[in-house]
Amino acid sequence: MPPLIFLVHLLIIDIKKIKPGIMSKIKVAVVSYGNIGKFSVEAIQAAPDMELAGVVRRASSTGDTPPELAGVKIVSDISDLGKVDVAVLCSPTRSIPEVASAILAKGICTVDSFDIHGQAMLDLRQLLSEAGKKHNSAAIISAGWDPGSDSVVRTLLRAMAPKGLTYTNFGPGMSMGHSVVAKGKDGVKEALSMTIPTGTGIHRRMVYVELEDGASVEKVTKDIKSDSYFSNDETHVIPVPNVDELKDMGHGVLLEHKGVSGKTQNQLFEFRMKINNPALTAQILISCARAVLKQQPGAYTMPEIAPIDYLAGDKDDLLKHLV
Amino acid sequence: MPPLIFLVHLLIIDIKKIKPGIMSKIKVAVVSYGNIGKFSVEAIQAAPDMELAGVVRRASSTGDTPPELAGVKIVSDISDLGKVDVAVLCSPTRSIPEVASAILAKGICTVDSFDIHGQAMLDLRQLLSEAGKKHNSAAIISAGWDPGSDSVVRTLLRAMAPKGLTYTNFGPGMSMGHSVVAKGKDGVKEALSMTIPTGTGIHRRMVYVELEDGASVEKVTKDIKSDSYFSNDETHVIPVPNVDELKDMGHGVLLEHKGVSGKTQNQLFEFRMKINNPALTAQILISCARAVLKQQPGAYTMPEIAPIDYLAGDKDDLLKHLV
Repeated sequence: MPPLIFLVHLLIIDIKKIKPGIMSKIKVAVVSYGNIGKFSVEAIQAAPDMELAGVVRRASSTGDTPPELAGVKIVSDISDLGKVDVAVLCSPTRSIPEVASAILAKGICTVDSFDIHGQAMLDLRQLLSEAGKKHNSAAIISAGWDPGSDSVVRTLLRAMAPKGLTYTNFGPGMSMGHSVVAKGKDGVKEALSMTIPTGTGIHRRMVYVELEDGASVEKVTKDIKSDSYFSNDETHVIPVPNVDELKDMGHGVLLEHKGVSGKTQNQLFEFRMKINNPALTAQILISCARAVLKQQPGAYTMPEIAPIDYLAGDKDDLLKHLV
Repeated sequence: MPPLIFLVHLLIIDIKKIKPGIMSKIKVAVVSYGNIGKFSVEAIQAAPDMELAGVVRRASSTGDTPPELAGVKIVSDISDLGKVDVAVLCSPTRSIPEVASAILAKGICTVDSFDIHGQAMLDLRQLLSEAGKKHNSAAIISAGWDPGSDSVVRTLLRAMAPKGLTYTNFGPGMSMGHSVVAKGKDGVKEALSMTIPTGTGIHRRMVYVELEDGASVEKVTKDIKSDSYFSNDETHVIPVPNVDELKDMGHGVLLEHKGVSGKTQNQLFEFRMKINNPALTAQILISCARAVLKQQPGAYTMPEIAPIDYLAGDKDDLLKHLV
């Protein structure tokens, strides 16, 4: 093939491949700008089919722009961003029902990483399902790594070996919830609670505390160990001069399943990861932001989503390489 | 609560839970009765929401009933089984396009474990999608562990860390395809080709051959090593007195992904399993037989299916425990 024709041929292919992306990039808003919000902005910027519509922050924060948001539209009301296809909710779990309902009511889809398992998750799904059906929008809830991608793996393993035991072992890694509870105790200036897996879904809590002057190690230890967040786990409280120097956002999971396929015993499965915690949560939120636009109005958890919907690109082309 | 009322209360709950299952068990036919067919019958018998409608075999085999099929309806035409909701196709891959099309045309859903990756899989999906849409039936194709559940894991990992390398390492375990090719060489009475992972998706082939009297080890070795099935891999041919004594249906996978979530590098993932090969394939087929009934007419690969659809039971109840 002569070089010029070859080049023209290449260009045609490239334009055909890129054009739909240019023509219709998904407009994504990030709501609340903490750790997860920051990594979500990065994941949107890295996604070939998305553009950042802007960041929604409390009115009190909008004046105080971090350097990495230079040039990004920052507003206190999502309606001020113009057209938004989907909002990534990075606000605290307890605020999700209210924040998500309000945004779904504007006909904008939402994704969140609501992280309370069980009935509270079902209640949120019911609430947002009604809001979505009423306002022609959809939500994917509890979209992180646990709940989230781990939930998908647990579901898949049940399909592969329906009978048997599954253990989810977390860590080693920082537990945000436990750290906050430990920090809340009298005499504690700063705290880091590390989750250490000891197997079969049992965890040890290593709690590093920076004490206020004159605080008693014994009393702080007793207060932490007797709190319901810690009382069921083996817990060690260790005073240190500086908690911040110990902080690292790495985390991990070992998900084990041993079960029965049909009538055949001893089928063995392991899913393991070592990851930057907020970066993975944010990436899963962004993949779900793509998937939610492909769903019918309503609200869904990740095991209810066809995994191919998470990915950017031509479906047949993806399947050809992934199946 | 008085004991009698308590008992009545329990009975009401139980009847409510069990009744839908009794009223509408899924009627499943197994088509072709080799290794996968045998394990599929077991998986159907173990499923709480299914009943075995019968087994479809070639007319020449229907008189020769294996003991475990005593009491099971065996026919040579699926239409002789009465109402069938879904057919589990356990016939060889090359026969799937024809067998599946014919059954979909009767309005019966199908699942198969068609195991050729790439364009052939897309072509089958297109063919069966048209058949399904025309006759109001649906198919899940390439439903085994690879292609199949591994495809789902690969897709999920791409959603979690879109950039980076993925390696699928198979084994140690018997490769059916390679064993058949080795057995087909002149002078080979029986052969077992083991797939041995050497990392980064590269495999060694250990081929155990039982030779016919007077066959030359050197010639057989050369014939096997030069076949396109083996010529790209490190291959060792080892003569043994009895191949059957070496056979074991265990197999394994290590699926590795190292990638980037958003802009964060070095996210590490592993999915590992050690399993009975035909038992897992059959269980996945049966879980897909449940899922296919929940799909719109058409044909699908496993990454296109919401994982929760694979499971028996009340959806909210399942999600409450799995998410």
